[in-house]
Amino acid sequence: MAEEKIETTTGENIVLIGKKPAMNYVLAVVTQFNNGAKSVKVRARGNAISRAVDVAEIARNRFVTDVKVSSIAIGSEELSNEDGTKSKVSSIEIMLAK
Amino acid sequence: MAEEKIETTTGENIVLIGKKPAMNYVLAVVTQFNNGAKSVKVRARGNAISRAVDVAEIARNRFVTDVKVSSIAIGSEELSNEDGTKSKVSSIEIMLAK
Repeated sequence: MAEEKIETTTGENIVLIGKKPAMNYVLAVVTQFNNGAKSVKVRARGNAISRAVDVAEIARNRFVTDVKVSSIAIGSEELSNEDGTKSKVSSIEIMLAK
Repeated sequence: MAEEKIETTTGENIVLIGKKPAMNYVLAVVTQFNNGAKSVKVRARGNAISRAVDVAEIARNRFVTDVKVSSIAIGSEELSNEDGTKSKVSSIEIMLAK
């Protein structure tokens, strides 16, 4: 599933939050930092936004306590539905950095 | 329900997001600005966090287009459950300002 992959293409470390339990994504974030990343971006859309905040909070409070929330951005994205209609969904990007 | 009220006690205008449809809260935000507020804080916990982002995005994109997101903060709060146990929930505060 495209939504579940961890992108590393841009030189930035991005964890895209989907429908799996929050701890799966926390593990992804912690792994990125343990592999030497200085910052990790946690990104989500729609209902997964709450989980993105959980992931950021759990990661920095319990696992990588030297990491801070350096910026948070919200926005809107337009998605094409399967029936051809379009709908707007909100999105969030939480930047965690050492 | 305490969770659904709009607080104005601190001189700040706060809209606390609960389980109602997003448009109810959008209306509350827009009303605050129309009543002369210079800033409105949108606050949510747990699963309502996604809705808080929706509310902020809908309000500023469709209704009060001169308003910007001036700051976003995330955090964790400890809640006491009915059975006496405690659980942590994430929270968000989105500050909208003219």
